[in-house]
Amino acid sequence: MAANPSSASMPTAAPAAAEAGTRIMAWADALAAHTEQPGMLTRTYLTEAHHGAAAQLAEWMQQAGMTVRRDAAGNVIGRYEGTTPGAPALLTGSHFDTVRDAGRYDGNLGVILPIACVAEWNRQGKRFPFALEVVGFAEEEGVRFKATLLGSRAIAGTFDNKVLDNVDDSGKTMREVMREAGFDPAGLPAARHDRSKVAAFIEVHIEQGPVLLNEGLPVGVVTAISGATRFIVELEGLAGHAGTVPMDMRRDAAMAGAEIGLYIEKRCGGKPGLVGTVGQFNVPNGATNVVPGHAVFSIDIRSGVDAEREAAVNDVLAEIERVCARRNVRAQVRKTHEANSVPCAPWLQEQWAAAIARQGVPVRHLPSGAGHDSMAIAAIADVAMLFVRCGNGGISHHPTETMTAEDAALSARVFSDFVEHFRLQQ
Amino acid sequence: MAANPSSASMPTAAPAAAEAGTRIMAWADALAAHTEQPGMLTRTYLTEAHHGAAAQLAEWMQQAGMTVRRDAAGNVIGRYEGTTPGAPALLTGSHFDTVRDAGRYDGNLGVILPIACVAEWNRQGKRFPFALEVVGFAEEEGVRFKATLLGSRAIAGTFDNKVLDNVDDSGKTMREVMREAGFDPAGLPAARHDRSKVAAFIEVHIEQGPVLLNEGLPVGVVTAISGATRFIVELEGLAGHAGTVPMDMRRDAAMAGAEIGLYIEKRCGGKPGLVGTVGQFNVPNGATNVVPGHAVFSIDIRSGVDAEREAAVNDVLAEIERVCARRNVRAQVRKTHEANSVPCAPWLQEQWAAAIARQGVPVRHLPSGAGHDSMAIAAIADVAMLFVRCGNGGISHHPTETMTAEDAALSARVFSDFVEHFRLQQ
Repeated sequence: MAANPSSASMPTAAPAAAEAGTRIMAWADALAAHTEQPGMLTRTYLTEAHHGAAAQLAEWMQQAGMTVRRDAAGNVIGRYEGTTPGAPALLTGSHFDTVRDAGRYDGNLGVILPIACVAEWNRQGKRFPFALEVVGFAEEEGVRFKATLLGSRAIAGTFDNKVLDNVDDSGKTMREVMREAGFDPAGLPAARHDRSKVAAFIEVHIEQGPVLLNEGLPVGVVTAISGATRFIVELEGLAGHAGTVPMDMRRDAAMAGAEIGLYIEKRCGGKPGLVGTVGQFNVPNGATNVVPGHAVFSIDIRSGVDAEREAAVNDVLAEIERVCARRNVRAQVRKTHEANSVPCAPWLQEQWAAAIARQGVPVRHLPSGAGHDSMAIAAIADVAMLFVRCGNGGISHHPTETMTAEDAALSARVFSDFVEHFRLQQ
Repeated sequence: MAANPSSASMPTAAPAAAEAGTRIMAWADALAAHTEQPGMLTRTYLTEAHHGAAAQLAEWMQQAGMTVRRDAAGNVIGRYEGTTPGAPALLTGSHFDTVRDAGRYDGNLGVILPIACVAEWNRQGKRFPFALEVVGFAEEEGVRFKATLLGSRAIAGTFDNKVLDNVDDSGKTMREVMREAGFDPAGLPAARHDRSKVAAFIEVHIEQGPVLLNEGLPVGVVTAISGATRFIVELEGLAGHAGTVPMDMRRDAAMAGAEIGLYIEKRCGGKPGLVGTVGQFNVPNGATNVVPGHAVFSIDIRSGVDAEREAAVNDVLAEIERVCARRNVRAQVRKTHEANSVPCAPWLQEQWAAAIARQGVPVRHLPSGAGHDSMAIAAIADVAMLFVRCGNGGISHHPTETMTAEDAALSARVFSDFVEHFRLQQ
């Protein structure tokens, strides 16, 4: 057996990557200890747990050779200076707040993975012709103040000051909470990054779905963050006695809803990147022996391609009319949300794809059905994302969310390779 | 124009019937004034409103020439003696309790209509070779103590003493309430009518459905009180992110339920007398952006023919298995109720049909999908029912329940004719 000498100072590539994977997993565990609720991970904007996590990230950034600052939104920003001080930065990062009873990789992975890579470059004394800034976005999930993407919107200059009046469950406004935490809402405009100072934004994120898992792939290139249209539909039929109203005389609101739901499922099936969901469905005050006169349900339709989403939405609305006319049921359809897709820049997608291919991994492109900080940052920079395989059936926003150290290592190699080969768009 | 002399003492048949119709409608209005809740009709077992209605019924019965007694269950029983005192009685009646915010004809019609007919016979001095007993059953709906058919079960000797421990919303047991009202639970066994003293039981009831209304018929002969099987179904799929889980990887519990619901609707359609209802349907903690991992719904399947109900139930259970296997969803199916149908005696149905035909009205047979006091009385006597057309789309258990004075008059003619031609089964 040939000797395979390795030392702490000059590891071969593979052991170094394995080490990075182990470190990333350990950091994710350590960060998960910063929680509001013992026994589960919940870390919402500007709570004590949130401050603890921010301090921990700042410490790791400093140890990795970055200068660290916090902006008025509470974002933690580490800058690894380039060969020319003050050069535009390649921005990367994700959020370190969480949903309630969360998984530990959603968001957090996209902050700690780049720090681990910078630590290695710093150890090697390696610098790039551009700066690298790693951002821990202070808020993305919208749990505490019912407003999402607070951190990335501050950096993009699209922070909506109206949300400063939003209150948390204790009745405190966001403005009060920020002040108590030492962040001045008046400083928010200054948190904006200038487009000329940002070369691009890249985000590493756990997939939060089963696509890569089911195809046996560790990573994928995100094509776009899907646009979404949401509705609440209220159906009004006629309540009746379950024993005395013959089937052909019924105006059953729940069965009208069931038919519409199954149409949505069929219409959105078989088209990669298009999804349609009835997440809420309820017969208010329903009773076993009463034909439902009333039903309420939600519709959520998403696609990375806006035209595909719009076509599906139109077909669903037409089907609602058809079903309701045939069943003599009245429908109230209220649009509650609509956002176009945010495309990932093709030139950045190409560089992700090249970095993946150089690791000998097949390149898979897929849209992101969930929203991410990249959506907000797209206002000031071209953006692109790398998805990392999500274990356990693709579950996320749940304590059983998981990923492997091997995938963390491979993702770190892809990220490092991307940065080392990064070229500005011609 | 020819004179059409009529007097109070000797009206022609048609004006007398019209008068009976007007009287029945006026009595229904008067009885509806006995309510627990001003502005709506709610009259539950042994409340003050209930006592008031009982006293009113007793008064009308006495004025109609009946001797009146109340039994230990609070039933109001008026006896119109036959030509031979002590002869077996033709029993008739229905309940005078109501659901909350009820219509005024459900139950009550079946008590006041016979009283109006007896009043007329009494005026004419007409007696029959059998006694006629009109029973106002004190309780059928089960609202106050969550136990139904209390009055008719006492008379049938099938009263379950365990329900005496049931409590109302104020925490009082039925036993306490009965005692405070002057009714002795120990006397319940004596309330039982002996089979040898009951010639038959007939019940007049508003249809509570739209069948007669849609066919333009004022009355119909009930073939059977439908049997019913009820289930609660809990489906467990896998919750997922509405944006990130592709359609073909979902285990959507709500869409499985929708598919099962539509199957039930289709399987029970097109078969007269068979009905299937999903009255409750809920996605617990459903969210717009989450694929439902959990859904709960009820199933209620009824038919006047037990074999048809059983075949439908078996098909539905098989479909639940098929749908859940295909969708990889787990089903827990809990049977919460099962009761066979109670057939109406053919010889009594024939006599109802003959009485209807003699009024020149087409004879329509139909099952009753709702339960009635006849179900309980079937334990001690052959039973049969006459349905009266329900206006307003067939709505019942609702303040907009309605019927016409013309139908009340025609029903009184049919009832009178039935009694006047009544012959015991050979």
